[in-house]
Amino acid sequence: MADVGFIGLGAMGAPMAWNLDDAGFDLLVYNRSDDREDPFESAGIETGASPRDVAERVDVVCLIVSNGAAVEAVLEQDDGLLAGLDEGTTVVQMSTIGYDETMAAAEMVSEAGGTFVDAPVSGTVGPAREGTLVGLASGEESAVEDVWPMLEAMCEPVVNCGETGQGTNMKLFINLLLGDAMGAFAEALVFGRKNGLDLDTMQTVVDNGALDCPLFAGKGELIADGDYEPRFPVDYQFKDLSLALDRAGDVGAPLSQTAAARESFSAARAQGHGSEDMTAVIKHLAETADVSLAEE
Amino acid sequence: MADVGFIGLGAMGAPMAWNLDDAGFDLLVYNRSDDREDPFESAGIETGASPRDVAERVDVVCLIVSNGAAVEAVLEQDDGLLAGLDEGTTVVQMSTIGYDETMAAAEMVSEAGGTFVDAPVSGTVGPAREGTLVGLASGEESAVEDVWPMLEAMCEPVVNCGETGQGTNMKLFINLLLGDAMGAFAEALVFGRKNGLDLDTMQTVVDNGALDCPLFAGKGELIADGDYEPRFPVDYQFKDLSLALDRAGDVGAPLSQTAAARESFSAARAQGHGSEDMTAVIKHLAETADVSLAEE
Amino acid sequence: MADVGFIGLGAMGAPMAWNLDDAGFDLLVYNRSDDREDPFESAGIETGASPRDVAERVDVVCLIVSNGAAVEAVLEQDDGLLAGLDEGTTVVQMSTIGYDETMAAAEMVSEAGGTFVDAPVSGTVGPAREGTLVGLASGEESAVEDVWPMLEAMCEPVVNCGETGQGTNMKLFINLLLGDAMGAFAEALVFGRKNGLDLDTMQTVVDNGALDCPLFAGKGELIADGDYEPRFPVDYQFKDLSLALDRAGDVGAPLSQTAAARESFSAARAQGHGSEDMTAVIKHLAETADVSLAEE
Amino acid sequence: MADVGFIGLGAMGAPMAWNLDDAGFDLLVYNRSDDREDPFESAGIETGASPRDVAERVDVVCLIVSNGAAVEAVLEQDDGLLAGLDEGTTVVQMSTIGYDETMAAAEMVSEAGGTFVDAPVSGTVGPAREGTLVGLASGEESAVEDVWPMLEAMCEPVVNCGETGQGTNMKLFINLLLGDAMGAFAEALVFGRKNGLDLDTMQTVVDNGALDCPLFAGKGELIADGDYEPRFPVDYQFKDLSLALDRAGDVGAPLSQTAAARESFSAARAQGHGSEDMTAVIKHLAETADVSLAEE
Repeated sequence: MADVGFIGLGAMGAPMAWNLDDAGFDLLVYNRSDDREDPFESAGIETGASPRDVAERVDVVCLIVSNGAAVEAVLEQDDGLLAGLDEGTTVVQMSTIGYDETMAAAEMVSEAGGTFVDAPVSGTVGPAREGTLVGLASGEESAVEDVWPMLEAMCEPVVNCGETGQGTNMKLFINLLLGDAMGAFAEALVFGRKNGLDLDTMQTVVDNGALDCPLFAGKGELIADGDYEPRFPVDYQFKDLSLALDRAGDVGAPLSQTAAARESFSAARAQGHGSEDMTAVIKHLAETADVSLAEE
Repeated sequence: MADVGFIGLGAMGAPMAWNLDDAGFDLLVYNRSDDREDPFESAGIETGASPRDVAERVDVVCLIVSNGAAVEAVLEQDDGLLAGLDEGTTVVQMSTIGYDETMAAAEMVSEAGGTFVDAPVSGTVGPAREGTLVGLASGEESAVEDVWPMLEAMCEPVVNCGETGQGTNMKLFINLLLGDAMGAFAEALVFGRKNGLDLDTMQTVVDNGALDCPLFAGKGELIADGDYEPRFPVDYQFKDLSLALDRAGDVGAPLSQTAAARESFSAARAQGHGSEDMTAVIKHLAETADVSLAEE
Repeated sequence: MADVGFIGLGAMGAPMAWNLDDAGFDLLVYNRSDDREDPFESAGIETGASPRDVAERVDVVCLIVSNGAAVEAVLEQDDGLLAGLDEGTTVVQMSTIGYDETMAAAEMVSEAGGTFVDAPVSGTVGPAREGTLVGLASGEESAVEDVWPMLEAMCEPVVNCGETGQGTNMKLFINLLLGDAMGAFAEALVFGRKNGLDLDTMQTVVDNGALDCPLFAGKGELIADGDYEPRFPVDYQFKDLSLALDRAGDVGAPLSQTAAARESFSAARAQGHGSEDMTAVIKHLAETADVSLAEE
Repeated sequence: MADVGFIGLGAMGAPMAWNLDDAGFDLLVYNRSDDREDPFESAGIETGASPRDVAERVDVVCLIVSNGAAVEAVLEQDDGLLAGLDEGTTVVQMSTIGYDETMAAAEMVSEAGGTFVDAPVSGTVGPAREGTLVGLASGEESAVEDVWPMLEAMCEPVVNCGETGQGTNMKLFINLLLGDAMGAFAEALVFGRKNGLDLDTMQTVVDNGALDCPLFAGKGELIADGDYEPRFPVDYQFKDLSLALDRAGDVGAPLSQTAAARESFSAARAQGHGSEDMTAVIKHLAETADVSLAEE
């Protein structure tokens, strides 16, 4: 019997699953579209027929799909996870979804007799490959402990965020900050360009100061290269800022800068840049300011 | 005859002047209030009687005071710099002031027969002491070259930003980004606290991700310690965001996140935190959200 | 047999139902808590045992409850509306709910064999009493025509907004504008007070200019009187701005002022003013600016 | 000897001067460019050679020019107002300028021995013609009383706002509210259009509700007609929001919605709509949302 089921072999999920495999876990994978399963099958890794099938064959199922509706579908569809759960099964939910969605998923799993671990991850495809995602684990202490070695196969560090839901809140926290920071960086660069500063010189100043960080260094280079291939697309960043603001509204945390950032990403989407990298938020800002990002 | 005049021995100016001294430049210092001159006098460094006196006795005068009005005063007052300028004198203006103020100062110096270098610095008291400020030099190529060794005594790196005014624009660029980033960090932390996350765990997540940078690491620790001693006070950050937005309005760069950030710092001032460190922007956000920053 | 069923006898629903009664419609009313039904029973108006009971006994059911979850409950609960629908039944949904919620309700009703009219109303308790609500009707042309006389008993004017969902969009449009306007009025008054202007004089200037309207005249007087009794509470305005921004995000309409307004109402809620009138948005703005609204 | 000098015969000034003439005041007019004086000269009204000439020949001088720099020029230029003032002269400053600019002008006039009345007006060209501007008078009680009849010839009502500077603050208050309201209206209309609502139906809903006012009725019609001829141009509204935010920052009134509104008008300017009517703020919002304002 396999050790771990893994559902969702997308851009993030696939390298995470390979890291589990590399760490010696015996995998059973599943993806809605078969072609994403092929490389695993070629490597001799078992595949499941459905989420239900996966749940019936292993004790721990990791799940990482694109949004809350997809999580709900995997759980509730005919042949879904819930249909295959038994008392010994733990579901490790790693997708970025809203707080209410997490709590609803936790309740479904619990009512079906299973155990729920809320464990989204922070980081993009690079860290997913290198196993350096930040794991944001939360749930019942013993359940979190049980899956800790699996999380450590995919993440470094793994951070215990508290009770169920706090992993999700932590994910919203960090993506809120990333979105705000990306939006602010874009505004600053447009300000500079409109004043005739060039991107390289601005980058030098950023890289030598208190904001020297991988985000600005990496995204600055991509902007200078005009490379908007999606690492983390505008649509996702918009979704996460929206989830964070929903949650902020529910708990009573007014966030005016974050609200402004969300509208900037909304503008990027409205202008057709939703599937480009989050850096593309700068395109509409530059157009509005009527300035070219390239040196003249 | 001394090599360099240095006017303004405040929290930034004093350590910068000492670094010039350490680098072997023969100094002539001046400060409006005498007590700030005393340590220099004790060390055998010459002091001037007035800005005019300084201008009359050296060929290069560095100037770093608190704002545009102070720069104007140093230049135009009776016994001011302009009164003592001759054709060979270069004024290196290092204060953070508005673009229009820089251009007006440049014109005054030029009309008085002198040469103007616009060279604000990025960094706070720590880098000022260590000589690791980022120097943002701009002006006529030959004038910038002439004072480069002096700038290198105080800054590392020194960055050539272009023609007169571009040093100021670069300073506004970087402080705009710092202000936005600080405001965003404060919003994110308040979001997390209101959701029951603790500061330490949030910091761990930030420090292990794409936003790992001296600003968030340093300011996060100060917030966790409840230490709001001014390194760079709210009042200054508010001033710089205001200068940047003025300039952005003039050149036509609409900046909605930055505008929101300015109002957050304005709220911090209105609530009496103007002279505390810029981190104090979090205080009013936390009060508004009715949450304590300390763990309960 | 009664002509019309009416579900939801709250602050808005009760006077609307009375207006239907006054216009000669034979009513069958229902409210979750019986006490709201008592005045109708005393007047000889029939009451239903459940939403299902109402649906079984009339051909047209009007529904106005507090939010989308309540609409869903009325429809889907055991003994809910859907359980009692037959092919001849029309459901006139008049609550303010989100666009997706409206479309989901329409689909449920349609699948149960009924006809759905989306007809929220604009206006508060006063207009509800006087029958001068603005009715925002939408749906299939023939269905809207059939219920038009009932809508006219409660509203003047009734406006045909188009296909199903457009009544809801129109309601979000007007409440977005009302929320933004209220927030802007509050900011302007706080600006004036902080500059030492008094409320009466500011009101005179507003009332004599291009913004002379019932909202500012009425709300200005209430603020001057310190009367924050809820006509339309902060919580509802916050909900409606949130629904509008959700919808705006979905369709791609970036709205930075509206986003800022939502956060102001969020601050009012976080400060404990959620159940006070929407005017209470000024309280936190005034506290932040550290100014009293009353003349000193 | 003429009763009143009038300097500045622009779009606002000219009809105001004619109203003074109609009311029986004996005028002496001056404009920087002669052609604006011609209609007055043709009507037998005296013209001055310079501001100084005007000041020397009358006891009261009204002044309405485009901004603070223009006011400063009229006062301080060679042959300026100050050069011609004597102890009996009152300067009625009616331009919209910043608070600091007003106080500086007041001090200059006072130092030159004259009396200063701060009396900007609210309203556009239509009310200027009809004499229904709202006059926002402030200054020493006796000085305000002395010029009251003149103000009443141009304005209805005239409002006494208090001591010198309060007229200016009131003007900033009302234009802040107008700018915010215009920006909010534009956002609401774009929200509606993006959802497929048509402008006429939205206007009907606005006109029948709590926001029924001349601004929305008038501007809505102009937008529906695609008429962006400047009544009050984007550039002026941007200037006034900037002046208000400057003042708000100085006194400590954080205004997040107003800050967002300013950036919207800034975007309109950056997109080349600065000299169009303030309604043109909607153009860039609609482009960003990728929606046409006209029905399809």
